[in-house]
Amino acid sequence: MAFFNENYTKLSESYLFATIEQRVNAYKKANPDKKVISLGIGDVTRPLPQVCLNAMHAAVDEMGSAETFRGYGPYEGYAFLRDAIAEGDFRSRGIDISADEIFVSDGAKSDTGNIGDIFGPENVVAITDPVYPVYIDTNVMAGRTVKIIPCEEANGFAPLPPSFHADIVYLCSPNNPTGSVLNKRQLADWVTYAKANHAVILYDAAYERFITEDEIPHSIFEIEGAKSCAIEFRSFSKTAGFTGTRCGYAVIPKELTLTAGGETFPAHKLWLRHQSTKYNGTSYIIQRGAAAVFTPEGRKEVAELIDDYLENARIIREGLLAAGFSCSGGVNAPYIWLKCPQGLSSWELFDELLNKASVVGTPGAGFGEKGEGFFRLTSFGSRGDTVEAVQRIEQAFK
Amino acid sequence: MAFFNENYTKLSESYLFATIEQRVNAYKKANPDKKVISLGIGDVTRPLPQVCLNAMHAAVDEMGSAETFRGYGPYEGYAFLRDAIAEGDFRSRGIDISADEIFVSDGAKSDTGNIGDIFGPENVVAITDPVYPVYIDTNVMAGRTVKIIPCEEANGFAPLPPSFHADIVYLCSPNNPTGSVLNKRQLADWVTYAKANHAVILYDAAYERFITEDEIPHSIFEIEGAKSCAIEFRSFSKTAGFTGTRCGYAVIPKELTLTAGGETFPAHKLWLRHQSTKYNGTSYIIQRGAAAVFTPEGRKEVAELIDDYLENARIIREGLLAAGFSCSGGVNAPYIWLKCPQGLSSWELFDELLNKASVVGTPGAGFGEKGEGFFRLTSFGSRGDTVEAVQRIEQAFK
Repeated sequence: MAFFNENYTKLSESYLFATIEQRVNAYKKANPDKKVISLGIGDVTRPLPQVCLNAMHAAVDEMGSAETFRGYGPYEGYAFLRDAIAEGDFRSRGIDISADEIFVSDGAKSDTGNIGDIFGPENVVAITDPVYPVYIDTNVMAGRTVKIIPCEEANGFAPLPPSFHADIVYLCSPNNPTGSVLNKRQLADWVTYAKANHAVILYDAAYERFITEDEIPHSIFEIEGAKSCAIEFRSFSKTAGFTGTRCGYAVIPKELTLTAGGETFPAHKLWLRHQSTKYNGTSYIIQRGAAAVFTPEGRKEVAELIDDYLENARIIREGLLAAGFSCSGGVNAPYIWLKCPQGLSSWELFDELLNKASVVGTPGAGFGEKGEGFFRLTSFGSRGDTVEAVQRIEQAFK
Repeated sequence: MAFFNENYTKLSESYLFATIEQRVNAYKKANPDKKVISLGIGDVTRPLPQVCLNAMHAAVDEMGSAETFRGYGPYEGYAFLRDAIAEGDFRSRGIDISADEIFVSDGAKSDTGNIGDIFGPENVVAITDPVYPVYIDTNVMAGRTVKIIPCEEANGFAPLPPSFHADIVYLCSPNNPTGSVLNKRQLADWVTYAKANHAVILYDAAYERFITEDEIPHSIFEIEGAKSCAIEFRSFSKTAGFTGTRCGYAVIPKELTLTAGGETFPAHKLWLRHQSTKYNGTSYIIQRGAAAVFTPEGRKEVAELIDDYLENARIIREGLLAAGFSCSGGVNAPYIWLKCPQGLSSWELFDELLNKASVVGTPGAGFGEKGEGFFRLTSFGSRGDTVEAVQRIEQAFK
């Protein structure tokens, strides 16, 4: 008898965004005349930078000739991309990360979802609440004990190291969903915690490019000692609009080691073994597109893209504040974390906004218990939609 | 203390192809003047069909305009591709598979590697020997008990259902590495075995397009009753040269259910949950390229590609047989399974061929104990290289 993985029954019934999609589709069916604006799912809307398109066209052409055709690539990603990442995202910022500590993937969701595979089931995992559901769900699937670190208004939605012991900690800064960031001191406290507990920090920096304030670290490896206790995840999804193009990467420093049954292994080696066994590398065409992000023209185009979204974030944040709402985020992050007005629950606000304003957002409760009473809006819409959505929300709650 | 997954220590030290690469690199370094021909790793060499290139160019262009830009796609793959697959690979052959039973991925390696995630650790897994190492390694990583089904000369390298009980069975036809195929009767025996044992067959049909003989089934779903006991994996890698482009798919019939702790779930639903949690869909650009395979022009170009490789297979097989070697495969498959001459072991023949003929093949022992004394050659080289390699092998063993 083939048995399924029983841990799957412990997952909540439906993935957050699937539930939202169902409700929105039902609303659209009932209101075919209404124009629905989504500031809900964190998907981008602007086209890819031209430099990425050019690079992918060239790569497609290479695939059309036997002389330049590319078959299986390196499991860790092509050197041209790993070199560009190491230099562009780390060394040029004074962070000592080398190309062979970088593992290219098809996105940060795959990486943060699959990284658990190299860890044993006995680890105690600390996860913030509210949180990107993937961290919790993948650990539930693996049967690991998950402990919650509350991120509340009182601590500015910035998680502090807990008093309990954990072996693995997930952190996300700039944060999805709250738009909060961890500053250097806070991140240093986490590194201290990790060292004291011999824990590993899984640091999701998918929104790094949105950081605008000088004192906010772009990488956990800016913190002394982090290289022996942290893995960092990055993505081209929000940076360069790759949500449907798919590319990301993990940074696993060579000095990070893990232990089990009296043996010690570099995490680096374990992940290479994972990737070479369960993955066959990211499409050559896509890796060429991602590498173009690091050219001078690519940097310029990405900066324009990010500035554009950050301007949306400013419009949402300032519009809502001016209308008397309470909200945070949206400064170093594409997400605005709105406090539900009039004592509404997250899903009540979701339905109110959908029915009164035809605006879709993401209920905070979908990110965890501590997200209840909050609501996530994203800056990834078009300028026109963003301005209109804010006006509609103001009207609906006048 | 963060503990690693102890099962990783039970894996053999190095992935087969990595070891080969190391030896070949050492040889090349010591013999910079020798032209090494690789008929080793199963990678293709011919360019992608023009129709795929055109489709990907068009998709890249779509990514460059806000009106046609694509962000996150469906976790299961786009309808245009799932529809094309259901019609092109199944319904047009009289096999009742619908588009919503198809899950698009970035390749059959990811799928066959990750599918284990939906199964519990208590399952007993039956795997043929010799075998594609991914099946074994991923089950070792998950801590499952693996039992071996020998595929030997005596049974024509076609595995028969074992006398022992198994909950999960991996089958691959056309077979990697032996080039053997399972006929309808043999496959029907496996379906009978699966039903009797309430087992699931994980059927890897990545080489399906190489089948030339009418009586060989292209899909396990040609067998009565298979839809309630089998999952099938397909790939565009060898079919259309997508080894570096990355696309494949899994077929999970809706009537296949799995049980645990008194509950029953459709495998289909479990896999959707896996994919929506740990994957974010295959690149839109790549899915467009894959869909082009099913156009009339795509079919024609793919047929030419496959015929070309099959002609290589014929040249290798007939050349070796004429030179007095014993070999099988290469008729419905791109792989030729060579019996090592003069009592050589697989790795001895590897070194002999590398040193005497500068030809790289894959030692059968790398695919399991029962592969010892055999050697895999692939038909994916260029015509010139293939002809020259066969001549060199003949010369070396005169």
